[in-house]
Amino acid sequence: MINYKKDFEVLQKEVNGSTIAYLDNAATTQKPKQVIEAIRNYNKNYNGSPHRGAHYLSIKATEIYEETRKKVSEFIGASKSEEIIFTKNATESLNLLAYSYGLNQLKEGDEIVLGITNHHSNIVPWQMISEKTGAKIVYIMSDKNGQLKKEEIESKINKKTKIVSVSHVSNTFGIIHPVEEIIKKAKEFSATVIIDGAQSIPHLKIDVSKLDPDFLVFSGHKMLASMGIGVLYGKFEKLKEMSPFLFGGDMIEYVDLYKTTYEEIPYRFEAGTQNVEGVVSLSVAIDYLNNIGMENVENKEKELLKYTLSRLKDKHFIELHGGNDTSYRTGIVSFNIKDVHPHDVATILDEYNIAIRSGHHCAQPFMKSMGFNSTCRISFYFYNTFEDIDRFIEAIEKVRGYLGYES
Amino acid sequence: MINYKKDFEVLQKEVNGSTIAYLDNAATTQKPKQVIEAIRNYNKNYNGSPHRGAHYLSIKATEIYEETRKKVSEFIGASKSEEIIFTKNATESLNLLAYSYGLNQLKEGDEIVLGITNHHSNIVPWQMISEKTGAKIVYIMSDKNGQLKKEEIESKINKKTKIVSVSHVSNTFGIIHPVEEIIKKAKEFSATVIIDGAQSIPHLKIDVSKLDPDFLVFSGHKMLASMGIGVLYGKFEKLKEMSPFLFGGDMIEYVDLYKTTYEEIPYRFEAGTQNVEGVVSLSVAIDYLNNIGMENVENKEKELLKYTLSRLKDKHFIELHGGNDTSYRTGIVSFNIKDVHPHDVATILDEYNIAIRSGHHCAQPFMKSMGFNSTCRISFYFYNTFEDIDRFIEAIEKVRGYLGYES
Repeated sequence: MINYKKDFEVLQKEVNGSTIAYLDNAATTQKPKQVIEAIRNYNKNYNGSPHRGAHYLSIKATEIYEETRKKVSEFIGASKSEEIIFTKNATESLNLLAYSYGLNQLKEGDEIVLGITNHHSNIVPWQMISEKTGAKIVYIMSDKNGQLKKEEIESKINKKTKIVSVSHVSNTFGIIHPVEEIIKKAKEFSATVIIDGAQSIPHLKIDVSKLDPDFLVFSGHKMLASMGIGVLYGKFEKLKEMSPFLFGGDMIEYVDLYKTTYEEIPYRFEAGTQNVEGVVSLSVAIDYLNNIGMENVENKEKELLKYTLSRLKDKHFIELHGGNDTSYRTGIVSFNIKDVHPHDVATILDEYNIAIRSGHHCAQPFMKSMGFNSTCRISFYFYNTFEDIDRFIEAIEKVRGYLGYES
Repeated sequence: MINYKKDFEVLQKEVNGSTIAYLDNAATTQKPKQVIEAIRNYNKNYNGSPHRGAHYLSIKATEIYEETRKKVSEFIGASKSEEIIFTKNATESLNLLAYSYGLNQLKEGDEIVLGITNHHSNIVPWQMISEKTGAKIVYIMSDKNGQLKKEEIESKINKKTKIVSVSHVSNTFGIIHPVEEIIKKAKEFSATVIIDGAQSIPHLKIDVSKLDPDFLVFSGHKMLASMGIGVLYGKFEKLKEMSPFLFGGDMIEYVDLYKTTYEEIPYRFEAGTQNVEGVVSLSVAIDYLNNIGMENVENKEKELLKYTLSRLKDKHFIELHGGNDTSYRTGIVSFNIKDVHPHDVATILDEYNIAIRSGHHCAQPFMKSMGFNSTCRISFYFYNTFEDIDRFIEAIEKVRGYLGYES
């Protein structure tokens, strides 16, 4: 098995006597040295404000910026690079859609269909739009394993539906939702489909030309790149229906005292100086992922998932979420330990240098629908190892004892 | 004179046989190695998602993030760190104010007073708000040197005024506007004052506790830090009047299916995973600037300005903008060369590795009010040298000859 950790210095360094078993990749991933050095190299050699200057550094920055736009479009199978808009994160991408698309297109009587497993960033902006437009929010509910139910997809998407916005992969249970069916159903009623790809683009091979959503969003920092860079993919025809969101430099054609005309797509959605360093990091991150091959990323994570589930299944003190069908699961495992609050689990595991997440995972409506407030979550990336999982298993065996319970 | 360039590798490297005389600092500044290495160090050692985890990397990232918030608040003299909100750039900060403050506070009959020298990012968001609310935009016009006129300040700010939003320093001519007077006048009518500090915070010692604006915005990348990180300062009482802008993770208290309550200030204005690397860069940038001393930054740039003006004043082929009174000017010089389009000047100077900017500088209303479409602009930072200016002067002597005109 290939040792990817050699490229990730943070995973090799010792903290209080051991390396960190980093199992919080659904929150943010680590960066390989290729990405870290590319940012440094950019800052040492090519830093400039893109699109605005006739000088060497500005021209270099523009080249890097626009070449990355093309690279991102190819990575997800977009038909042209103009369909890629850079934002600061998936959250901004979703808010951009809420303000620039939702606010203009929706009215009372319309329905916005959300997945109950959606991340808050794909719920709260729509609540704001619902309040402002009178459009109603409707949820596709899940089964006990967190999979969106077919009959719910069938019944909730109907002629009142104007927008359907769902997670491709749930960030709490790692469930791959049937977005193909959701998109098909939405198209029957000419509803616009938004896919939150924050947890899918980094882990699965996605081709928007086949999947055919209207919009798709994701974040760089969950796929080896920097924080502060996100992507909004939109079909060109859909982007044309949208008004600008942020207003300022670079997105305008002509500014008069009281009236402004806007630049072409995609520039009209990118106001002010953009995060070129973030774009550089995304470029190299995509190279790194392409070099591994997204199929290999997916397969490696599936192996880690299966191994984890096999190691956990006999532990009587563990309640596992998400079911046993690994065909529609990615490398995320949510669980609870009997009698122990998830936050205590995370804190105790931190003493063993095992990084996991506890809480509501920014998905309170889903958590509530499943009957709890909080879970522990481990989440993999391709660089994780069986040894990381062994260390995790060993440590959770000790958690109950640590707190004075029988193990 | 201290050689700061030793810390800036991009200013030392040779491109086609010479170093770059970088005179485009009003667009973006370069980063010292201290900043570049801090980003790298963070990525290699502490990368984690802040506020959300109980594990080492997340805790480290949270510490760095919140310590920087405190450092920024001290740098500008805010009364507490909760008054600092991180955004992606000054443009986002201004848009946040337009959406979260302007949209809720304004109505027909109200007036928004803008400086005619404002950057587009401080004009176009207000045009959108004007369109949505019916509030009217009013401009404080400038004199022939680009200084906002006292009689305009007196007459345009009146009982109809609800918001006054002006540049502290104009990005085209580098004029320091009398913001003290503007703030005083606005307070007479209880109007809210927004100061665009994008061109002042990096260059002048500013203390908001004395200046006393309601809001102030600036960008990291114009003060040695990364692109993708900006700041919104707001008086705590004013921030409390604002509704959230971007909706998502980390900014919520509790999300129900159809209703959400929000986190405390400042978190309610920071949705999704923030640009921690950008924050790290801003932290070290502030250390670097504090180490030099902002008074020294200001003095150095003033010296460079005076030297440039003295070298340019006898050149008959140059039209200089901004006037001779350097008491209210920063290190920005806008000019035109007779018969030559500014873009051609910038392109020719690039052949000599001299980086200048040409165009409307995202200030078309101001340019139009001055009677032209485009200027050349050079802009300094403390690391520039007299030699940079000598190279610039030598090169512009050749521009007209290059194009076949008599010099």
